[in-house]
Amino acid sequence: MQISKLNKSRIGEIDFQNLPFGTVFTDHMVIARYRDDSWSEPQIIPYGDFKISPAANVFHYGQAVFEGMKAYKDGQGQILLFRPMDHCLRLQKSAQRLNIPPVDTELFFKSLKELLKLDHQWIIPGKENSLYVRPFIIGDSPKIQVSPSKTHTFMIICSPARSYFEENQQIRVIINTNHSRAAIGGVGNVKAAGNYAAQFYPTNIAVESGYQQLIWTDATTHRYIEESGTMNMVFRIGETLVTPPVSDRILDGITRRSVITIAKNQGIPLEIRAVKISEIIEGSLNGSLKEIFGVGTAVVVCPISEFSFENKTYTAHWPRKTYAQVFKKMITDIQHNLANDPFGWRYVVN
Amino acid sequence: MQISKLNKSRIGEIDFQNLPFGTVFTDHMVIARYRDDSWSEPQIIPYGDFKISPAANVFHYGQAVFEGMKAYKDGQGQILLFRPMDHCLRLQKSAQRLNIPPVDTELFFKSLKELLKLDHQWIIPGKENSLYVRPFIIGDSPKIQVSPSKTHTFMIICSPARSYFEENQQIRVIINTNHSRAAIGGVGNVKAAGNYAAQFYPTNIAVESGYQQLIWTDATTHRYIEESGTMNMVFRIGETLVTPPVSDRILDGITRRSVITIAKNQGIPLEIRAVKISEIIEGSLNGSLKEIFGVGTAVVVCPISEFSFENKTYTAHWPRKTYAQVFKKMITDIQHNLANDPFGWRYVVN
Repeated sequence: MQISKLNKSRIGEIDFQNLPFGTVFTDHMVIARYRDDSWSEPQIIPYGDFKISPAANVFHYGQAVFEGMKAYKDGQGQILLFRPMDHCLRLQKSAQRLNIPPVDTELFFKSLKELLKLDHQWIIPGKENSLYVRPFIIGDSPKIQVSPSKTHTFMIICSPARSYFEENQQIRVIINTNHSRAAIGGVGNVKAAGNYAAQFYPTNIAVESGYQQLIWTDATTHRYIEESGTMNMVFRIGETLVTPPVSDRILDGITRRSVITIAKNQGIPLEIRAVKISEIIEGSLNGSLKEIFGVGTAVVVCPISEFSFENKTYTAHWPRKTYAQVFKKMITDIQHNLANDPFGWRYVVN
Repeated sequence: MQISKLNKSRIGEIDFQNLPFGTVFTDHMVIARYRDDSWSEPQIIPYGDFKISPAANVFHYGQAVFEGMKAYKDGQGQILLFRPMDHCLRLQKSAQRLNIPPVDTELFFKSLKELLKLDHQWIIPGKENSLYVRPFIIGDSPKIQVSPSKTHTFMIICSPARSYFEENQQIRVIINTNHSRAAIGGVGNVKAAGNYAAQFYPTNIAVESGYQQLIWTDATTHRYIEESGTMNMVFRIGETLVTPPVSDRILDGITRRSVITIAKNQGIPLEIRAVKISEIIEGSLNGSLKEIFGVGTAVVVCPISEFSFENKTYTAHWPRKTYAQVFKKMITDIQHNLANDPFGWRYVVN
């Protein structure tokens, strides 16, 4: 693999104690081109702006998919990834739904590993630190006919991150019944770029009303919970956890999958089923709603203190010992090599 | 306005009789930047690749909106546009829904007119010719947090075009009841880039099955007609035209609006109401379905010979004199200054 190294690392300029999420990038990036019906050998080049046609498909028709995952460094200096094959497979699935030729598994892993080894100094040990890894593919044929691009570019960029929300911070959310995140038979179940821009306006309304996030409901009846921002939703009612099933509208989150596996392993009752808004309101009113949390790669587990629905606010009755803590500790311990990995989720980059 | 001219026009290299749609671009383009909470003065620069961060919002979260309109040249050499204010207003509406700061009307018109005057030789007179004009805005903040971009770029690029489909060509379409174009409360009513990439996969299935396009149905029941590709749909049942109402899922097409206005003006009965699949099948079977056509900027009016639904094919019983011809002639005559313009749609660039 061709590697063009930056002359002098920018790492000395970075304040790792004070990292706004997603704005600082490591020294290098991966780039591979899809031309003449096949993916080229990936290259590693210095991170920075690149040239593209203003007619590129991605600017007009949104042909773009991505993944988000994290790399860690343990006490022995090993570079670790969490379930990278799951991310690779999901990127391939997203690509297929958007008519993008999937990057093959070998190209994905080979280039990812080389990049992480080259920029390993950017991965800071310690449980609060990670390197957010963003593989993405864009359609870049310079053609403004509404049709799939014939050429594509795959890139991986990396951004060092502190914990997404502060430790033990709880967020407030509002249930949105006016907008929808995804249509039945749409692309809500894959990481298509366009899904996210569509959320900005409704999310902004929530933020301006004093909430950190909104909860999406189903597009048809608006009576069922779907997801929240970039997180899958989990509720604890009594001793039982409930989470909506994935569908063509709900992303099959890898943290969600991990939570389900841990729940089974730990004997925590968990039901995967449609969750009615009325049911969690009732749980809040009668005291049986014990926990609400979002789960996702960026946040891992994000506790939600209260939710608003039709101008009323409802709280969860959090106990001292929570399932949310169990999941967060187990997942982050496995990620940082601080615990055994009975599920085979940890991947050592070497 | 700052104008950097290309040293030598590329126009001599172009075969204007043989133009694949959307792949040839004129010598110049407009570019304006949104920085520090305001739009900069637009510039005109030579058309070509530009530099952008790989972390730009548009690549990851699809923050991008566009318009498509056409410029023409009449026998006196005047440059004409069709309903440009409608396109400007819709671009502003699309931008707002995607949390993009709208380009103001003055900036839009001033830069558009300068660009057309500078590249006027690319606008070929004659009814088969037009210059497709593509204004678009992309979010380009280099930040991979899921939030609206703080910086944006507005551009206008132009591509000379022959008629989109050949004269009198009829297309075959298939009704899709497995996928959806847009969610209720989503972004289907604005020209968000992500709407189009989401269509590629289902459209490709249609194309591989021998159809040129598919017809989208409502996401909830799949019993009602929505749109077809980038066209609004019109049906003639008996002497009456029917077209679905615009909604938060159906684009408020400017050609559709023009057709509605002409129908009123010409005394053609037209109903704006939900159109059931069962109704058009019945019309095909009993002979009352006389015309099916799509309407949109690229195609103007595109007759549809037949549609497929659940593995059966249904035809329209086209009469010799069609409403489709009336609309196409009136609209293109107004566009090319070959007829009076009672509706004030034609705009002279000077």
